[in-house]
Amino acid sequence: MQPSAILEAALYVDDLDEAERFYGETLGLKRIARAEGRHVFFQCGRGVVLLFDADATQAPPAPDARLPVPPHGARGQGHLCFAASGEEIERWKAHLTKAGIAVEADFEWPNGGRSIYFRDPSGNSLEFAEPRIWGLTSED
Amino acid sequence: MQPSAILEAALYVDDLDEAERFYGETLGLKRIARAEGRHVFFQCGRGVVLLFDADATQAPPAPDARLPVPPHGARGQGHLCFAASGEEIERWKAHLTKAGIAVEADFEWPNGGRSIYFRDPSGNSLEFAEPRIWGLTSED
Repeated sequence: MQPSAILEAALYVDDLDEAERFYGETLGLKRIARAEGRHVFFQCGRGVVLLFDADATQAPPAPDARLPVPPHGARGQGHLCFAASGEEIERWKAHLTKAGIAVEADFEWPNGGRSIYFRDPSGNSLEFAEPRIWGLTSED
Repeated sequence: MQPSAILEAALYVDDLDEAERFYGETLGLKRIARAEGRHVFFQCGRGVVLLFDADATQAPPAPDARLPVPPHGARGQGHLCFAASGEEIERWKAHLTKAGIAVEADFEWPNGGRSIYFRDPSGNSLEFAEPRIWGLTSED
């Protein structure tokens, strides 16, 4: 038995409004949930990108909470990578540059496949990469 | 244009050896990379779980680095959720309990679907959840 897929990846942000604009408008992801002051969530293919305010998620649930989600919350720059084809990476680079977002790094991996890196408004390190950098194909 | 999938989700750990045992043996994921003192990576379906030592990843790349991966690194308890069917969640709960790992929460979401939560050795909050908690199916 082994986990079959990543369902949710989480990052922590300083400002939920700013994060919602960036992930929803600049990246074009579909918002599927928002809890004021706590989180905003976006669908990404078969997965979900969770953006949290760590001040809110570090609080333990109430003893009688109906949904006793355990506390978590990190500080500093996290990392998340989206899958993209080589052609999509080229288009994303142009799109980000046009939106005034710096592409911090852009290179080919030794075994083939390209990555570009940029930052969300909270400084998290985001990446677009071809799945083949891990030997994965879109059919895996 | 929007990102089509999460390719990599990252967590930060205190001890890479301990993390490798937990994710590789207890969870049964396949290790696909290790850089001593910096990271250990595991394949998870079409994605990759990245476990980093933040002390190493916070250092900027050398000016002439062949692969100038931008710095990142968070402190505190992150969160990651794996997809699982209802039947798999039942089996994971038994498996974790047998391995001496506490299941910190176990509940049904209001719109249907179950989640269980536990911790990795560094205290990151891990979850198994049914994709239908987000209206997703295994065919999405």
